[in-house]
Amino acid sequence: MKYKPEELTKLPRSVQFREGKVVLIDQLLLPREFKTVALETVDEVARAIKTLQVRGAPAIGAAAAYGLALLAETSKAKNKDEFFDEFYRAYEVLKNTRPTAVNLFWALNRVKKVVEEHREDSLESIKRLIVSEAHKIADEDVDANLKMGHYGAEILDEGNVLTHCNAGSLATVHLGTVGAVLRVMHKEGKLKLLWVDETRPVLQGARLSAWEYHYDGIRLKLISDNMAGFVMQQGKVDYIIVGADRVVANGDFANKIGTYSLAVLAKEHGIPFFVVAPTSTIDMSLKSGKEIPIEERPKEEVLTCGGCRIAPDVDVYNPAFDVTPHKYLTGIITEKGVVYPPFERNLKRLFRS
Amino acid sequence: MKYKPEELTKLPRSVQFREGKVVLIDQLLLPREFKTVALETVDEVARAIKTLQVRGAPAIGAAAAYGLALLAETSKAKNKDEFFDEFYRAYEVLKNTRPTAVNLFWALNRVKKVVEEHREDSLESIKRLIVSEAHKIADEDVDANLKMGHYGAEILDEGNVLTHCNAGSLATVHLGTVGAVLRVMHKEGKLKLLWVDETRPVLQGARLSAWEYHYDGIRLKLISDNMAGFVMQQGKVDYIIVGADRVVANGDFANKIGTYSLAVLAKEHGIPFFVVAPTSTIDMSLKSGKEIPIEERPKEEVLTCGGCRIAPDVDVYNPAFDVTPHKYLTGIITEKGVVYPPFERNLKRLFRS
Repeated sequence: MKYKPEELTKLPRSVQFREGKVVLIDQLLLPREFKTVALETVDEVARAIKTLQVRGAPAIGAAAAYGLALLAETSKAKNKDEFFDEFYRAYEVLKNTRPTAVNLFWALNRVKKVVEEHREDSLESIKRLIVSEAHKIADEDVDANLKMGHYGAEILDEGNVLTHCNAGSLATVHLGTVGAVLRVMHKEGKLKLLWVDETRPVLQGARLSAWEYHYDGIRLKLISDNMAGFVMQQGKVDYIIVGADRVVANGDFANKIGTYSLAVLAKEHGIPFFVVAPTSTIDMSLKSGKEIPIEERPKEEVLTCGGCRIAPDVDVYNPAFDVTPHKYLTGIITEKGVVYPPFERNLKRLFRS
Repeated sequence: MKYKPEELTKLPRSVQFREGKVVLIDQLLLPREFKTVALETVDEVARAIKTLQVRGAPAIGAAAAYGLALLAETSKAKNKDEFFDEFYRAYEVLKNTRPTAVNLFWALNRVKKVVEEHREDSLESIKRLIVSEAHKIADEDVDANLKMGHYGAEILDEGNVLTHCNAGSLATVHLGTVGAVLRVMHKEGKLKLLWVDETRPVLQGARLSAWEYHYDGIRLKLISDNMAGFVMQQGKVDYIIVGADRVVANGDFANKIGTYSLAVLAKEHGIPFFVVAPTSTIDMSLKSGKEIPIEERPKEEVLTCGGCRIAPDVDVYNPAFDVTPHKYLTGIITEKGVVYPPFERNLKRLFRS
């Protein structure tokens, strides 16, 4: 890889493990305050995940794994049986924090598997393995992002990019998925202007993306979501680049609500539309986007904005995600390379390689 | 007309003149509180226009005209010269409230013209003419809305409608432009569900449209602007109906930011897209929408929402309007009938008839 993470961002990792503590960028304080918190118990880590002090599927996964590492380093268990009791209790506590984050279960199970494969080892050795597996999970995330960043920037020319929601460093361990692509482009002087959609109702664009890209010195303009079409009409957008919560076998994908509208607008204006997603996000078991269930969230999110009440108490529709059919998609940037249409065939090939 | 205004809405007129006072629905208190204010001086009326206690071009025009009527009914001038002095002072004060509202100048000038055409009449007679002209301005607005409501409902079948911003009763003297169409459809049982875009950044949809249509018992769902495309994808929108700030000779039109995106989405989903606008909104002096100047508003509107700060202090783009090319437009509903493509020819015909 051409660049190291620290050459691409001034931000520290969003999730770290240092001196037996889980250290997080407190996302509840952003964008008002940029501060890290050091968590000293498994319960504190679980609470941080629950209260969204840490958010973004890869960041949550790493935080949970480090929660188990914290246990390994601080446990006062006198023997293996006592330690295993503590370990399974911690595993359950961390598992029950968020119901739908796939990475959370995946990361916890990876650590658990290591423990179970080494039950006969010494307690000290098991503890070391736990810490090392947690570090591996975090490092692999950074490595995948770094690769996506390089692959993405390689195929994109100089220009203005529009993004939606936050698939940046804050949502991952470091750099981000979309964030890595933007940062490599910026490093190479190819990112002329970044358009940031505010991303109602939860404002991940206004609160998090605007903050983290501004922090790294990327030139950006924040807009309300409904301004994106007008900006495209004026010829001020060269690429649209978004993350994905799930990509399925035919290339259809689910992402934050508003993504589908952007895709239709991109097509109307002939603007290339890319998804950045690690292969762990690709679910080959679903054939089409129609099979992806869409979470509906509480009406309060729409009736309020940034803590202020904005509407009378009327009915609301609040889907958290939408599904974009693959026909709107130019390519999928993964850590194994960029996938182009026909997606059904080429995604299959990606997993065979 | 099949229905009278009072059969279509429970709302009073947004702007009234009663017992020498200008009575307004206080839009600054909505949606938290529904209250009218009675203004007793020209300065109070000017302040109400400036502070957006009354907003919406037709409502502002009527409020200003009634400001002059208020002067006519409360003036203690001893002779015509004294009264004319007061009148021109009031005219200037009201004129200098908002810089761009065409209806404001148009309404004030209509009253001034009546005064100037009757300079030789008695003072009492001139005062009566002022009051009567102001009432005429308000009544004509209601009449035009009522006609648009009936013409619109006539051509629309039963279904779900999506609207943007507020072109409802609150923006006019009574009923609204889009509001009248929706109310006649509702009266006839043809409006199954109304989708209301919240309309960032100033939230006219969430604050005003959601409130006034809910008040009249119309079944509605409020959504964030970026959800509109997903709702259309699911087949839940049969018509999109919006107002216009200016329609030009070829049918291109300017309206609240976000309208253009809706028009593109409507085309992609085969959804008919209508504008409701009185002929006074049609500017035949401009050939195409490219000639319409677009107002950019302060960045604070995007950095805040409903009074809450939502983003760090980054650059912002905040166009108040966008321009939709006529190719996306199914028809324009006016008080003289519905205009269909080719708009250039048919708008000309409308003004000849």
